[in-house]
Amino acid sequence: MKIAVMGYGTVGSGVVEVFLKNHDSIIKRCGQPELDLKYILDIRDFPDDPNADKFVKDFNVILNDDEVKIVVETMGGLHPAFEFVSSCLKAGKSVVSSNKELVATKGYELLSLAEQNNVNFLFEASVGGGVPIIRPITQCLAANEIDEIAGILNGTTNFILTKMIEESMSFDDALKLAQDNGYAEKDPTADIEGFDACRKICILASLCFGKHVYPDEIHTEGITKITLADVEYVNSYNAVIKLLGRACRVSDSQICAMVSPCIVKSFSQLGNVHDVFNAILVRGDAIGDVVFYGKGAGKLPTASAVVADVIDCAKHANRKKIFGWGDSEPGYIYDYLQMENALYIRASAQDKALALEKAAEQFGEITVLYRRNAPHDEFAFVTDTDKEGVLREKLAKLDMITPLSIIRVTDY
Amino acid sequence: MKIAVMGYGTVGSGVVEVFLKNHDSIIKRCGQPELDLKYILDIRDFPDDPNADKFVKDFNVILNDDEVKIVVETMGGLHPAFEFVSSCLKAGKSVVSSNKELVATKGYELLSLAEQNNVNFLFEASVGGGVPIIRPITQCLAANEIDEIAGILNGTTNFILTKMIEESMSFDDALKLAQDNGYAEKDPTADIEGFDACRKICILASLCFGKHVYPDEIHTEGITKITLADVEYVNSYNAVIKLLGRACRVSDSQICAMVSPCIVKSFSQLGNVHDVFNAILVRGDAIGDVVFYGKGAGKLPTASAVVADVIDCAKHANRKKIFGWGDSEPGYIYDYLQMENALYIRASAQDKALALEKAAEQFGEITVLYRRNAPHDEFAFVTDTDKEGVLREKLAKLDMITPLSIIRVTDY
Repeated sequence: MKIAVMGYGTVGSGVVEVFLKNHDSIIKRCGQPELDLKYILDIRDFPDDPNADKFVKDFNVILNDDEVKIVVETMGGLHPAFEFVSSCLKAGKSVVSSNKELVATKGYELLSLAEQNNVNFLFEASVGGGVPIIRPITQCLAANEIDEIAGILNGTTNFILTKMIEESMSFDDALKLAQDNGYAEKDPTADIEGFDACRKICILASLCFGKHVYPDEIHTEGITKITLADVEYVNSYNAVIKLLGRACRVSDSQICAMVSPCIVKSFSQLGNVHDVFNAILVRGDAIGDVVFYGKGAGKLPTASAVVADVIDCAKHANRKKIFGWGDSEPGYIYDYLQMENALYIRASAQDKALALEKAAEQFGEITVLYRRNAPHDEFAFVTDTDKEGVLREKLAKLDMITPLSIIRVTDY
Repeated sequence: MKIAVMGYGTVGSGVVEVFLKNHDSIIKRCGQPELDLKYILDIRDFPDDPNADKFVKDFNVILNDDEVKIVVETMGGLHPAFEFVSSCLKAGKSVVSSNKELVATKGYELLSLAEQNNVNFLFEASVGGGVPIIRPITQCLAANEIDEIAGILNGTTNFILTKMIEESMSFDDALKLAQDNGYAEKDPTADIEGFDACRKICILASLCFGKHVYPDEIHTEGITKITLADVEYVNSYNAVIKLLGRACRVSDSQICAMVSPCIVKSFSQLGNVHDVFNAILVRGDAIGDVVFYGKGAGKLPTASAVVADVIDCAKHANRKKIFGWGDSEPGYIYDYLQMENALYIRASAQDKALALEKAAEQFGEITVLYRRNAPHDEFAFVTDTDKEGVLREKLAKLDMITPLSIIRVTDY
C-alpha cells in the first residue's frame, strides 16, 4: 500500500519525517505488509531533500496511481485543497487532512463523499495539533451524551495572554514576541481575532452534537481588546483570561457555540494551561469532565496526529469509520445572547462611588474587583448570572457609566 | 446482536444504566441494527430491579447462547473472572473488562486468546476509570515512539494527599474521611500501599512498550509513610507529593517501571490534579507531553468507558483490534536503583548544622528546605540528580544522620 503527501510545508515535511523515522513500528501497528511513501506533491522545488525523487508537481499523477490508497492533505487553505481531496475520495482513496479551514467549512460534504466511496476521511490534526481529541470524542466518549465542550484551541493567543498575565507585557509586545518566536504569523489576524479557534470549535461542535456548524454562524471575538487593566482586575478575582471556543447542547434540536475571551479560575484545568499549550474540556453525562492537554501546534506534534490517522486508514483499508456528523439545519444555532453567563465589566464614570451603587441596584449583587494604581474614574465588577442579553440591556440603561471592557465569566 | 453483563456491582449496574439510558445514540454510533442487553450474571438476587427478568446465576447460559456476541466482565478479582473471560473468548464472543487485576496479570494471555479466536478483548475502563487513555495510546499516539508515561492512577490516595496538602490533615484522618466518603474501602491496603496504581502502570507499560509487565516485577511503594512534615517541607520547594505510577524506555530491550510517592511541581499538569481525579502524562518523541485528565473511578465514569468499548466491539464485529502487547521477557525490567533521580531526604541529627555540612560534602550541591516549628534536630534537603543507588549509598555513609523519609523528585 502506498501513500502520498500533498503540501510540503511545516506539517507536510513533519509528516514525512515522522513517517520515515518510526516506519518499522508504524508498519507493525497498521497490520499491513507494507506502507510506503510514494509521492510528495508541491509546486516548489526541493532538489536537496533526501526524498527528492518522490516529488511531483502534477496532482493527476497521484490521482491516477491506483497503488496510492491514502493521501495526506497538508496544503492548507480551501482551494485547491477541497478539489484535490474530493477527487481523491471519489477515486477510492482515503484522505487524512490537517486543514482546519477545509474541515470546518466542508466537513459534512467530504465525510459524505468518503462514505459514498467506502473510504475514510480523517482529520485528527485539524484540532489541537497533536492532542488526541477527535478520536476520543467519537470513540472513547461514545457512551456519553456530551453536554458541553470548551477549549483553549489556539496556542498563539494563549502565549500572548500568558505573557500579559505572568509578565505584565502589553498585548502589542506579547504579539511581537510571539511573532519573533515563530508562534504568530506576520499577519496574525486569524489567531488574534479568534478565526482559527472558531474553525476548531466548529469541528468539535459538529462531532459532539451531530450537525455541521459553520464558522460564519457563530459569534467570534478575539483578544485584541484585552488590556493589562483587565488582566489585573481579573487577577484579584483569582482568575485568568483565556480565549475559549465553547459549544453546548441547549436542547435536542439546538446548540450554542461561540469564541470569546472568558474568565476562568486560575488553578482550574483550563486556567492552568500556559504558553502555546492547548487544552480541551469535554463534559459528558456519564463521564463528567475530561480534559485533554498538549501542544496544539508545531511540526512534529501535528505530524504525529496526521500519521496516526494514516495508520488508522491503513488498518481500516476496507472499512469506513462512522462519524455522526450530519448536515446543518436552519435554526440549529441558538442565539448566544439568550445564554446565561455572569459578566465582568470594566468601566469609567465621573462619580465612581455613585456608579457602583447604581450598578448594584441595576444588577442585584455585584462583586467589585481591584487593581493597583487604577485611574480614579475606573472600576470593574462581576455581575450575577443571567441571560447575557438581559445583562447587556441593564448595562445600557446605566448611562452614567462608560463601559470599557466586557468579558464572560465561566465556571471552568 | 446481544450483550451480557457479568457482575452487577457498582460498575456493572452503572454499565446497564448508561447502556439503557443512551441506548438510541449508542445504536446509531455502533452501526448495528440492534444491540440489546440479554443477560445479567450475578449470584445475588435483585428482585426489585427493573431488569429483574434478565438475571441469571449460571454462567453457562451466557456461554452457550450464540446470540450473545459481547460479554462485559465487571466482576473484579482474578477468579472466576479469568476462567469466564477465557471461555467467552474461546466461544467467539468479544469481551470488555474493567478489571485491572485481570488485565494486569493475564492481559497477554487473554489478548492472545482473543486474537486466536478472531474476537476483541478491550479494557479501556481498567485504567483511569472514565479517562480515555488505552485507545489514545494505542491509536492516537501510534505514530510516536513513547519514551515515558507517568500518572496519578489512584483517586483514593490522591484524595488523601490533597487533604494533607491543602488542609494539613493527618494521613489517618484523611484516610478515615476517604472511607466515610466511600472513596476508600474498609481494607484500604490495595490503594494506600500502591498495589492498585501498580496494576494500572503495568497495563500502561505493557501497551506503551510492547511486552507484558507483571505487577510483582516492579518496585511499589505506597503513601503510608508520608507525613505532614514532608508535605510542609515540599511545599517550601513549591512542589507537592503525588503517588505516581511511572514507566520509561531505557533502551530498545529494557524499560523501568515503578510506583512511589514523587515530588512534582505544584502548578504542573500533574501537580495541579486534586481530590479523586486522575491524570496521565504521556511523553512521545513526536508529540511531546500530552496529559489526559478526569475522574479515575466512580460508577458512571467507569461505566462510560466500558460502554464505549462495547460500542467498539459492535462496530468491529468481524475484525479484531491490534494491540502490540507481547509476552514478557527475562531481564526486560531494568533495576530502578540504576535510574537517575534527585532525592528529597528528611532526616534528624544531633548536630544539624554539621550534618547539613557533611551532606553537602557527600552529595555535592544540596537544596535545603524549610518548615515552621520543625524539631531542632530535624532537617530536609534535595540532592542533585544521580543514580538512585549511588545516592542511597552516599546517604548510608553519613552515619551521623538518621533518615526519616526519602522521596523521589521528578521533573514533571
